[in-house]
Amino acid sequence: MRTRIHHIVFTPGATGEDHLSFIADAEVQVDGNRIVYAGEAAAAPRFEAEETIDGDGCLCMPGLVNLHTHTPMTFLRGAGEDMVLDDWLHKAIFPLEKQWDEELIRTATDLGCMEMLRFGTTAFNDMYFFTDIMAQAVRQNGMRAMLGHGIVDFDESCKDMVEGVEMAEKWNHAANDRIRFSLAPHSEGATTPKLLTKVVETAKRLGLPIHIHVSETEFDVKGCWRRRGVTPPAYLEQLGVLDLPVIAAHCVWCDERDIKIFYKHGVTIAHNPISNLKIASGVAPIAKMLKAGCKVALGTDGVASNNNLNLWEEIKLMPLLQKGITLNPTVVTPAQTLAAATVEGAKALGYDDLGLLQPGYLADLILLNLNTPNMTPATDLESNLIYAAQGSDVRLTMVDGKVLYHDGLFTTLNPDELLQKAREGSKEMHRRLERGGVTNA
Amino acid sequence: MRTRIHHIVFTPGATGEDHLSFIADAEVQVDGNRIVYAGEAAAAPRFEAEETIDGDGCLCMPGLVNLHTHTPMTFLRGAGEDMVLDDWLHKAIFPLEKQWDEELIRTATDLGCMEMLRFGTTAFNDMYFFTDIMAQAVRQNGMRAMLGHGIVDFDESCKDMVEGVEMAEKWNHAANDRIRFSLAPHSEGATTPKLLTKVVETAKRLGLPIHIHVSETEFDVKGCWRRRGVTPPAYLEQLGVLDLPVIAAHCVWCDERDIKIFYKHGVTIAHNPISNLKIASGVAPIAKMLKAGCKVALGTDGVASNNNLNLWEEIKLMPLLQKGITLNPTVVTPAQTLAAATVEGAKALGYDDLGLLQPGYLADLILLNLNTPNMTPATDLESNLIYAAQGSDVRLTMVDGKVLYHDGLFTTLNPDELLQKAREGSKEMHRRLERGGVTNA
Repeated sequence: MRTRIHHIVFTPGATGEDHLSFIADAEVQVDGNRIVYAGEAAAAPRFEAEETIDGDGCLCMPGLVNLHTHTPMTFLRGAGEDMVLDDWLHKAIFPLEKQWDEELIRTATDLGCMEMLRFGTTAFNDMYFFTDIMAQAVRQNGMRAMLGHGIVDFDESCKDMVEGVEMAEKWNHAANDRIRFSLAPHSEGATTPKLLTKVVETAKRLGLPIHIHVSETEFDVKGCWRRRGVTPPAYLEQLGVLDLPVIAAHCVWCDERDIKIFYKHGVTIAHNPISNLKIASGVAPIAKMLKAGCKVALGTDGVASNNNLNLWEEIKLMPLLQKGITLNPTVVTPAQTLAAATVEGAKALGYDDLGLLQPGYLADLILLNLNTPNMTPATDLESNLIYAAQGSDVRLTMVDGKVLYHDGLFTTLNPDELLQKAREGSKEMHRRLERGGVTNA
Repeated sequence: MRTRIHHIVFTPGATGEDHLSFIADAEVQVDGNRIVYAGEAAAAPRFEAEETIDGDGCLCMPGLVNLHTHTPMTFLRGAGEDMVLDDWLHKAIFPLEKQWDEELIRTATDLGCMEMLRFGTTAFNDMYFFTDIMAQAVRQNGMRAMLGHGIVDFDESCKDMVEGVEMAEKWNHAANDRIRFSLAPHSEGATTPKLLTKVVETAKRLGLPIHIHVSETEFDVKGCWRRRGVTPPAYLEQLGVLDLPVIAAHCVWCDERDIKIFYKHGVTIAHNPISNLKIASGVAPIAKMLKAGCKVALGTDGVASNNNLNLWEEIKLMPLLQKGITLNPTVVTPAQTLAAATVEGAKALGYDDLGLLQPGYLADLILLNLNTPNMTPATDLESNLIYAAQGSDVRLTMVDGKVLYHDGLFTTLNPDELLQKAREGSKEMHRRLERGGVTNA
């Protein structure tokens, strides 16, 4: 499909400049799944479009990248509220997670994708189970995703590796490049050195990145000191994990030395400010990390600790929290924040052609309504984007050149049917739990 | 008008219970500006309605109360970003504020009201200037408001009192009870003891509450110690200010003794978590205040330090911030949070018949769409309401028995015209500033 979007304001993205740049009366041309032109409408080349979208009053910008989530946990929305982490996991989350089956996972994945698309997220990085089913869902619903089968290993059996590697081999760089795989050892605390060493070998052999939770809570870091005599980043460095491309989720309890390690190895920190507050993990030192030159991108984490998949909430909270905690209103700029929500995440997923509106880049983009009360006036469009915008201001979401959401309509998902199936499915999980049934253990 | 809303889930509000209660298949009956029935549809009395609203798939709940804002600052959205407080005020905000005129204030007030109505806020507490114009706007656009003319006094002339008192006498408890007035001395630092003593006398004489900024920044508190030898709450107590009904905005830098003072005098703390982070003031110790039995309600503050008027963002952030900062996920419950966004604010505005869905209460209510991806499943409706809901989920906003917003349409405001006037008006203020013109000084 050849698509023209015109009458728009557009921003090429955030590429390390101090301020975002915008072009009024612009045009974007998409051929297949690539952007072929993005810039002033007056300078646009002739283009025979099959589909023309009038973006009057809208800002066209790169789609958002959610760099850390567990998508099927949509069904666990509101499961285990206001509990300390250990209770939350062992009394609320884990028992419910034993009730999954393939059909439920499929619906829960689609529900999460529908919510992400509605709020302008075009790609996500996931760690969960049943990744084969998740990949099938994503293949059909049209999103871009990197999936990783969560690997735990408490007994050095490394038996969880099998499915993780099998799925990665099956799906990675398969026919459809929208779906990629990572190896996803859960965390230092939930794995053994033997497992992590095996993960490093396999990731190198298959050319896969690593997705892992790092220093989420003080408890994690204290445990690592006790078990390994160093902090989690230092431990991962020792084992060679950081020689691979790594997405390190959370990184809340990190000191100056940890930050240096992240910088040295080009680790991307997946920052989940809402989840970290909600489970009372704390606030990651993102201002310091950015100052040290670290790569930072945003994630929602799973719905059970958020409780939604609207990345605009993270976009607003990332700079706010750093300003409020450091008592310095100048830290974390809108440009840094937008980069963390788009191009930095795209790069961490292994793309060098995603996250900016530039010719040759993949056509993952959104249209944001500027004609809303909350976006008016637009004296400073950059700050409106970060602090005033709503997820609901998203009017159109395009992934890989295809419109997946436009003004309330989804092109690959049936919202009424999906919401109904999700209500019934989540009830079924609770019923199974009450009956003491365990399906997937 | 006699209105019936049926096929709804409804919550009576939050009244100190640990958990919110909900009633499925409910009905609300409104006669004039009062609720006459709210409860199970099956038990509803016969009611001849002139207007019937089908609330299928919606939650009916009390309208939100924004307990601290400066509404016309909508025009200053994005003016002065990422600046330290002193620069922000003196280089960005104050110079622009000198450019106001009556027409601009009128448009800016309506713009703010439109945004609040769209996101389910039915009443707000304001401190600003041109309060006569603001009152005229509110009279016509149908919102409920308490207005206060911001009074500063650096030279003991107390000359700012004149307009504040005049407006309060003109409008307070006037024909239309939707509009009330407060006396609004800006803060300890921007007033003299002579002024505050006069304010106390006048407020007692006229039966008015006080709206004042208290201990917003560390700088404020240090200044008060230097000037008065005590903290701002202790100083206000000494002068008798706290013997009146007081809405104290911010209260970020408060110690245990301050909290005891608030509790003793029944002060309502207007908590503005987003603004406090954005200007880098810090995080108010709300968990401690609630534990001490203090009254806490939510506000957005002005748009220039937020940058929107969507109180749902404060609703989510209030418990999140307290959990993240105290590292205790059990502090601040959904019921406390919802109360802070509704009935606690209503009480602080002097109403004992607002903020709950009960017979005899004023009909300020909203319908919230439960059929959205982010609200599904509703395993725990209470936590969905606090953590998953979006301002955009609001489908209907009723104030004083009149529908002011319904599915994109405003009954008293013209959005297209207003957005256009707002764009032009804010540009005009910047033009005047560039020309060095001062209109209202």
